[in-house]
Amino acid sequence: MTYANPDRRDTISRLLNPRSIAVIGASADFGKVNGRPLKHLIEKGYAGHILPVNPKYEEIAGLACYPSVEALPEAADLAIIALPAAHVCDCVEDLGRKGIRAAVIFSSGFGEMGDEGKALEKRLAETAKAARVILLGPNCLGFVNAFDNVYATFSQYADGETGAGPIAFVTQSGAFGTAIAALVRQRELGLGYFLNTGNQADLSFAELMMAIVEDPRIKVAAGYLEGITDGDALVRLARKCQELGKPLILTKVGRMSSGARAAASHTGALAVSDAVFDAVARQYGVLRARNEEQMLDMLEVFCQPRRAFGNGLGIATQSGGAGVMMADRAEEVGLNVPELGAATQAKLAAVMPAFGAAGNPVDVTGQFVARPELLTESVVSLLDDPDIDVAIVWLQLMTAHVEPLLGIFREIQKRTTKPFLVCWVAAPDAAIRGLRTAGIPVYTAGERAVEAAAALARYGMQNKAGEDVPIPLAPATCPGATHSGFTHSGMQPTVQASSWLREAGIPMAHARLAENEDHAVALWRDSARPVALKIESPDIPHKTEIDGVILNIDDEAGIRSGYRALIERARTAMPQARLSGVLVQEMASGHVELVIGVQRDPVFGMIVMVGFGGILVEVLKDVTFRRAPFDQNEARSMLDDLRMSRILDGVRGKPAVDREAISLLLSRLSHWAAAMEPHLSELDLNPVLVGEAGPCVVDCVMIFEA
Amino acid sequence: MTYANPDRRDTISRLLNPRSIAVIGASADFGKVNGRPLKHLIEKGYAGHILPVNPKYEEIAGLACYPSVEALPEAADLAIIALPAAHVCDCVEDLGRKGIRAAVIFSSGFGEMGDEGKALEKRLAETAKAARVILLGPNCLGFVNAFDNVYATFSQYADGETGAGPIAFVTQSGAFGTAIAALVRQRELGLGYFLNTGNQADLSFAELMMAIVEDPRIKVAAGYLEGITDGDALVRLARKCQELGKPLILTKVGRMSSGARAAASHTGALAVSDAVFDAVARQYGVLRARNEEQMLDMLEVFCQPRRAFGNGLGIATQSGGAGVMMADRAEEVGLNVPELGAATQAKLAAVMPAFGAAGNPVDVTGQFVARPELLTESVVSLLDDPDIDVAIVWLQLMTAHVEPLLGIFREIQKRTTKPFLVCWVAAPDAAIRGLRTAGIPVYTAGERAVEAAAALARYGMQNKAGEDVPIPLAPATCPGATHSGFTHSGMQPTVQASSWLREAGIPMAHARLAENEDHAVALWRDSARPVALKIESPDIPHKTEIDGVILNIDDEAGIRSGYRALIERARTAMPQARLSGVLVQEMASGHVELVIGVQRDPVFGMIVMVGFGGILVEVLKDVTFRRAPFDQNEARSMLDDLRMSRILDGVRGKPAVDREAISLLLSRLSHWAAAMEPHLSELDLNPVLVGEAGPCVVDCVMIFEA
Repeated sequence: MTYANPDRRDTISRLLNPRSIAVIGASADFGKVNGRPLKHLIEKGYAGHILPVNPKYEEIAGLACYPSVEALPEAADLAIIALPAAHVCDCVEDLGRKGIRAAVIFSSGFGEMGDEGKALEKRLAETAKAARVILLGPNCLGFVNAFDNVYATFSQYADGETGAGPIAFVTQSGAFGTAIAALVRQRELGLGYFLNTGNQADLSFAELMMAIVEDPRIKVAAGYLEGITDGDALVRLARKCQELGKPLILTKVGRMSSGARAAASHTGALAVSDAVFDAVARQYGVLRARNEEQMLDMLEVFCQPRRAFGNGLGIATQSGGAGVMMADRAEEVGLNVPELGAATQAKLAAVMPAFGAAGNPVDVTGQFVARPELLTESVVSLLDDPDIDVAIVWLQLMTAHVEPLLGIFREIQKRTTKPFLVCWVAAPDAAIRGLRTAGIPVYTAGERAVEAAAALARYGMQNKAGEDVPIPLAPATCPGATHSGFTHSGMQPTVQASSWLREAGIPMAHARLAENEDHAVALWRDSARPVALKIESPDIPHKTEIDGVILNIDDEAGIRSGYRALIERARTAMPQARLSGVLVQEMASGHVELVIGVQRDPVFGMIVMVGFGGILVEVLKDVTFRRAPFDQNEARSMLDDLRMSRILDGVRGKPAVDREAISLLLSRLSHWAAAMEPHLSELDLNPVLVGEAGPCVVDCVMIFEA
Repeated sequence: MTYANPDRRDTISRLLNPRSIAVIGASADFGKVNGRPLKHLIEKGYAGHILPVNPKYEEIAGLACYPSVEALPEAADLAIIALPAAHVCDCVEDLGRKGIRAAVIFSSGFGEMGDEGKALEKRLAETAKAARVILLGPNCLGFVNAFDNVYATFSQYADGETGAGPIAFVTQSGAFGTAIAALVRQRELGLGYFLNTGNQADLSFAELMMAIVEDPRIKVAAGYLEGITDGDALVRLARKCQELGKPLILTKVGRMSSGARAAASHTGALAVSDAVFDAVARQYGVLRARNEEQMLDMLEVFCQPRRAFGNGLGIATQSGGAGVMMADRAEEVGLNVPELGAATQAKLAAVMPAFGAAGNPVDVTGQFVARPELLTESVVSLLDDPDIDVAIVWLQLMTAHVEPLLGIFREIQKRTTKPFLVCWVAAPDAAIRGLRTAGIPVYTAGERAVEAAAALARYGMQNKAGEDVPIPLAPATCPGATHSGFTHSGMQPTVQASSWLREAGIPMAHARLAENEDHAVALWRDSARPVALKIESPDIPHKTEIDGVILNIDDEAGIRSGYRALIERARTAMPQARLSGVLVQEMASGHVELVIGVQRDPVFGMIVMVGFGGILVEVLKDVTFRRAPFDQNEARSMLDDLRMSRILDGVRGKPAVDREAISLLLSRLSHWAAAMEPHLSELDLNPVLVGEAGPCVVDCVMIFEA
């Protein structure tokens, strides 16, 4: 990752808005992959120099054609390579020699084509680096910069209208990406950039998006992902988008395949890619769209400039049933459909016909056809209510009334500042076009409008949350990390691991290692009693699996027989295991059982997990993740994520537990884990018992990198 | 419910296909509610007599207009009433006198308008009954029978094209229903019937649908519901649809609690518990569509004649990412995306380009544009695979290739018999129209295509399941019901209740009532030991709430002190409670805790519930329902419904429990509950402990009707 390099950054900017473009392997047949970019550049009015290169032609469509890269009259800002894979490396070397610093490679036959292709791609990346040429692709459709009429692409998307607009769209898939671009066009939202990453031999999704999202003409960033390798870059991108106040909407496929891997029973194994991706995306304010339709629905609402700053939804509807359906969906996606204030209710009562309902949803019935002020005043009153942050107006068909209705909506728009969405089922085309022209987001299904409103609210609220008084972080430097105690890799001794975590502020159950029976008795006498005995061995991470734990002992005979029994069980079950002795641990108690873990994710680095223990983690997979480090505010939201989070508030007569203490533990652990990143490979705190005295880590498995 | 009445049935048929229609309060202004039916009847070519009634006119649009109902030249088969609410009852009396047996009432101002309106509606229903006139409405849009050009409606739907087709659609909402009808028209699927029930003062949703679904021109039934009052009628309808082999697709709003409240206030209809509705719908083979888009998506796939008879989905895609997305969704909605057989793989390998993937999903890439046989042979091979029951073909845009692609799809259709769906993202209009004309279901989003395929598979499999060897039912007569022991209402004595249930084949923990301390000791001595002691009182249904249970006693002193303690605790906590004594119950054990219940649902009658006990039922609400009675097959499916059902298979080292024994218990209980319907108001079996010896009901609260 060389993004910090300012030269590279300039070169990327140049690639995206070149003063001249060489098309290597250009064809005079504009239907072909190597002819189409010329066609698009000429027809769409690219203003820079177009420099076709092909020894077969002297000119193409009136443009001088050059026999080789070397023969070019200038070092173009960008080269498009549409050659067979076998010739691409040589060509990139030619570019380097010529001083051409950026290339888009259409050619396939690389990483997507087995081992041979992978080797060729590796050579291509090395060649490009040596030649100081940055690459988009290979195996990509290229890109469109519609603001500056740059069509370095053979995508069928460019065959149609490609008017510029506020959306930056980067896709890892050519075919699916083209489909999404076409959907954006159908909705007339406007794509400013359309980039297909291809195999990402050099420029990655995050780096490309980072380059275009800063363009002031861009208001919204959208991405389609199939896989992510550089989590840090994605996190930097997400933070940049937050800083710029531009929503980042991502669709990533592969939700369930990771879910299936999550079926592994070991709790640490739950930290798998999609669940982690999802959690990290939310953590850094990314809006995840589950599919292309939802992405478009979100784009539509974010292409208009109004934002919602709370989750209060007002609904005005022509159908009571549609209102119910939308209120249901709102509840599911985290919106609130509040009761209206007395002032609002009075205003509504003044305009509503007797058979409409003045609650929320407001049932305006079909009477607004005869009395337009019914709709106007209802929606304006709704939006004026202090508890309403965004409104949806639902109507249907009305083929004969499009123009007056458009007038009503423009009037509402003039008289309000909060966002509102129109859901117009079975809408005439003119209605949809008219609303879009007016900059009013329009949907043709109620639940989809609600989901878009929810995205708007979520986005506004997370930005608002950022404005709150900052929550004090746990110490950013980690006492544990200053230790030089970890002289060996693999599983760390429990007493040592506990000691590091205790220094980091994690409440650990008190445990000491007895090396023989008499020692165990002495430690027991010295403990707050009763105690638990646990086998200790670097080869036995899961003590209970060999029946290696005995609880609640408080007499010398019990300690002695317990010690002997544990050693015996370990020898029988795992004769090869090195036995360190037996832990004598003070009993902890708590009516809530958590499991907390740290996992090194290959993409996102140190990831902290929390969930409910026992059957709940095993069968329900009720766990959540965050990228370390994070503050206590973020830790609190982890507890809210859990589907069973009500358990924390006390159920079945049990008292509530201290969420603050748990979130403090999580935040501290995240800082410790981040500081330990060079060493720590895995950490399982399982169980963590939470009682009235707060959380206490009862068992801990800490594994260092080999 | 008078559906069994054959006269009534004939009259409904006559209403839906009348030889003559009187329009009471007809207007010459065809833009008005009372003018629009005339316009539609004339313009759409209704072949029967049209008889306007209005003293203000002598003729309307060339039709003779009559001054009164009495003055009509014949007793029309149907009257449309478009009068102010205050005149409707008198008009219905006039109809009765004239011998007109059916009316559609557009007029509003009835049940939807507060107490006064409700009273008027009640009077209307009584008037109609006395006059022997059946009613559709009031407060409805009327109906369309497009086969016979009957337009007894003022719906704006009738303003456009209304070509007849295989769908029968009945809606409780006028506005939402009109929108759905318009969406059906957009997709050119064809509505044979469009009925709006309005307030259902007489004819209900289920009765109307029952009447039209039998029409041989109808292939699919679709309904939009806001509330249901007659559950029996809905169950009869669902069974009739199963018998006819016609899918019944229902959308019902009010899924969430807030939505349900809004629905109740909107329609005045009793909001049935949505969870019960959902379970009963599945039980009787209803396909529930969560919203109007999903309803349309299902209609599209059921309007073509092919059915899937298993859940094996084959995917052929132009984009690997789209394939992943669809495979993910398939897994979520119960479809299987199987590995292909060796023969299929060989066939695919023979036609696939090197860079396509021959697995499932099959990535055919964009090369099929150049080589159409690539797509044809891939999809035909997929569908030929014995593990594939339905296929989806995903592609995008292809504006320049619509005709050849339509040719390919028609070719595939010819060479296969299994169903396939096309998902064509950003499709040109001509592509969609062409596929629909060919009878091939087409979608514009991958996940929606998958959901439609899942509905097709679910429908086919449930019909297939019906063909299996029947599972023997538990005895349909109920030993408990022959008892005359329930001489009083309210909570039944535990020993009595247990005895009835035991006779019905339910495994109950053995318990006897001790009326004093000595008696308790004697019962303990006579028991398999140890025992539990439980307070017994008709006023204390929840014994644990007053600490009224002591477990695991096995010595005389313990029995004596326990007895005294329980009596003392009950006297302290509930001084007014009548104490029957203390139950002496043999201890049961089991590592899985279930809660099983029976409740009398106001809509669907006796409903059996099962779920996991403890925190799981309280926080996760992991329960499922069925309408009693049901067979063991259905009971098995209840266990599969539970999100945590894996617990039954043994987790955390625990053995699996006997699902057969649990399902037998549930089925037996359902038969007992059905037989007890006149008496039983509520039954809670909580907990039911399931161990290696099978289930055992440990506590039981049985309440009879007051």
